Amino acid sequence: MIPSPYFLYLGHSNDEIGIKTSRGLAVFRGEDCVGEFRHDDCSLTLGLPRMTFAEAVSAGAKTLVLGIANAGGKLGEDLVEDALAALDAGLNIASGLHQRLRDEPRLAAAAKAKGLALFDVRDPASDLPIGDGKPRAGKRLLTVGTDCSVGKMYTTLHLARALQARGVRADFRATGQTGILIAGDGVPLDAVVADFISGAIESISPARHDGGWDLIEGQGSLFHPSFAGVSTGLLHGAQPDALVLCHEPNRPHMRGLPHYRLPDLADCLEANLRTARLTNPHVKAVGIALNTSKLTPDAAARFCAETSDAFGLPCVDPVTMGVEPIIDWMLKCELSAPAATAFR
Amino acid sequence: MIPSPYFLYLGHSNDEIGIKTSRGLAVFRGEDCVGEFRHDDCSLTLGLPRMTFAEAVSAGAKTLVLGIANAGGKLGEDLVEDALAALDAGLNIASGLHQRLRDEPRLAAAAKAKGLALFDVRDPASDLPIGDGKPRAGKRLLTVGTDCSVGKMYTTLHLARALQARGVRADFRATGQTGILIAGDGVPLDAVVADFISGAIESISPARHDGGWDLIEGQGSLFHPSFAGVSTGLLHGAQPDALVLCHEPNRPHMRGLPHYRLPDLADCLEANLRTARLTNPHVKAVGIALNTSKLTPDAAARFCAETSDAFGLPCVDPVTMGVEPIIDWMLKCELSAPAATAFR
Repeated sequence: MIPSPYFLYLGHSNDEIGIKTSRGLAVFRGEDCVGEFRHDDCSLTLGLPRMTFAEAVSAGAKTLVLGIANAGGKLGEDLVEDALAALDAGLNIASGLHQRLRDEPRLAAAAKAKGLALFDVRDPASDLPIGDGKPRAGKRLLTVGTDCSVGKMYTTLHLARALQARGVRADFRATGQTGILIAGDGVPLDAVVADFISGAIESISPARHDGGWDLIEGQGSLFHPSFAGVSTGLLHGAQPDALVLCHEPNRPHMRGLPHYRLPDLADCLEANLRTARLTNPHVKAVGIALNTSKLTPDAAARFCAETSDAFGLPCVDPVTMGVEPIIDWMLKCELSAPAATAFR
Repeated sequence: MIPSPYFLYLGHSNDEIGIKTSRGLAVFRGEDCVGEFRHDDCSLTLGLPRMTFAEAVSAGAKTLVLGIANAGGKLGEDLVEDALAALDAGLNIASGLHQRLRDEPRLAAAAKAKGLALFDVRDPASDLPIGDGKPRAGKRLLTVGTDCSVGKMYTTLHLARALQARGVRADFRATGQTGILIAGDGVPLDAVVADFISGAIESISPARHDGGWDLIEGQGSLFHPSFAGVSTGLLHGAQPDALVLCHEPNRPHMRGLPHYRLPDLADCLEANLRTARLTNPHVKAVGIALNTSKLTPDAAARFCAETSDAFGLPCVDPVTMGVEPIIDWMLKCELSAPAATAFR
């Protein structure tokens, strides 16, 4: 486990998408974050106190989280120097970059000399199993999407918290670096070897017998030609009872691919249900989650209402409207499912 | 490139499926194989002369191919000792096992001392791109299957050779260790990191402008819950113009999974076409290839005829009947495709 409280790194970042890991921690683990580190040329803030490494240590921070993404996921010279200064001040370091902290000799030596730890959360376990698709006990929900970065992690976390607030046992199962840092555990699915995709998901959401739910963070999209293999293995490994479809209206094209339009919502939902049925024939859609941050509140409300009517499912923006309608519907579906198989 | 001629290792094997890599080389690169190595307790043969390592070197062999699979793909003590003896006799070593030859210190030291090479064909290139799904020039055929190990590699190789025999430019693109050893090149798709599945296939079948065909070896099945993610990324990366569906009649269940039945042939073909359309909307099925090795010749002929009638497509066992009907149909489809896009 990565020691908290955390100190969140922004560095020289000027791209909101580039700091999404630090932002995710500030939003979902805010109580465990003492402050943010940014250079003078960084125009972004998480709204946390700006501190030096020494001030962060005085404020109780145990780990500097390099919660930024840069081109290629590389450890640039800036990052290495800042991480060395943080180690010198007494902080452990955690990173979700592709390039491993421990492969940088200066960081490995400094951490060893100071008795501190380096955490590479994009390093999958070496003993992942191959998936077997055997039916397992417990209830599982998976978020799926029309595209990458449409709010699957946010939706999953909001659903987990809303269930917990009602006294239902619910665990968030992380599949990406930000989610893993928030949850303290999970599998970095994009870094897993291809043969182990579904097995990795089976291993993080094993059979459960306590009546609770696993809320599994989705990745990619069946309609993204770069990453649909990951999404397919995730659907099969998750063996979901319930799907929530995530979407950002008005996105001009698939992320990173100007030559691909987004799929139609109905086609996308049907493709996900069809794929999921291989390992759970009783899977159902229980809601639609929209990221409406680029719409006016009126337009957002109208879009949600129209989508809800068209699909006969609750449709919300989890961040601005909450997820209660989806939780209500999901628990109602569960009650109406055949008793012998619970919601299966 | 791995130096030939090859010397094929059987070791102590008594399981026909376990020697499929050595068998594949004997069948498709027989002219480059000088003999086989087997211990006294090995009950199998490839029909090649049995030799010692020294005799193989005298017969011209350059590389010992460890063309066997064992549980977990591990280098057991037997294998290490035999490989050390082969190095001592002057042979390079090639392996398709998961565990790398170069990670075994005794082999690394012996190879270095003798100036010989160790080839780990299950080691993907470290600079694979992420797939972009951009339409590219050239004609591509992909084999897909109802299950693993139903004859996709054999079918692909037979199609490549039949096209070449007609004077059509055609290249086999290997995606598994046996195919890579046969072709001398390719990508070991099951060992690629998940984010790079489709990109790996784009990289081994780049745009071509010579009017020729890439024949791409399929892997897994969209209906195999362990490996469907690999099959999905392969379909998207291949951007196939033509699919050939491979199947073994009467298989009792999905390979390794007694709790999963094989899919219906029509459902399987439709799912593959639907998935492939994301990156090539004009994809067509051009044939069905059956492995009828467990049927009588009469039953095989009847099954092929019935399947052909049901689908309106040629259906053959490539090994016993040849692939000419599929080649005829595929070239006819190509001629009838819109001129502007060739067969796209």
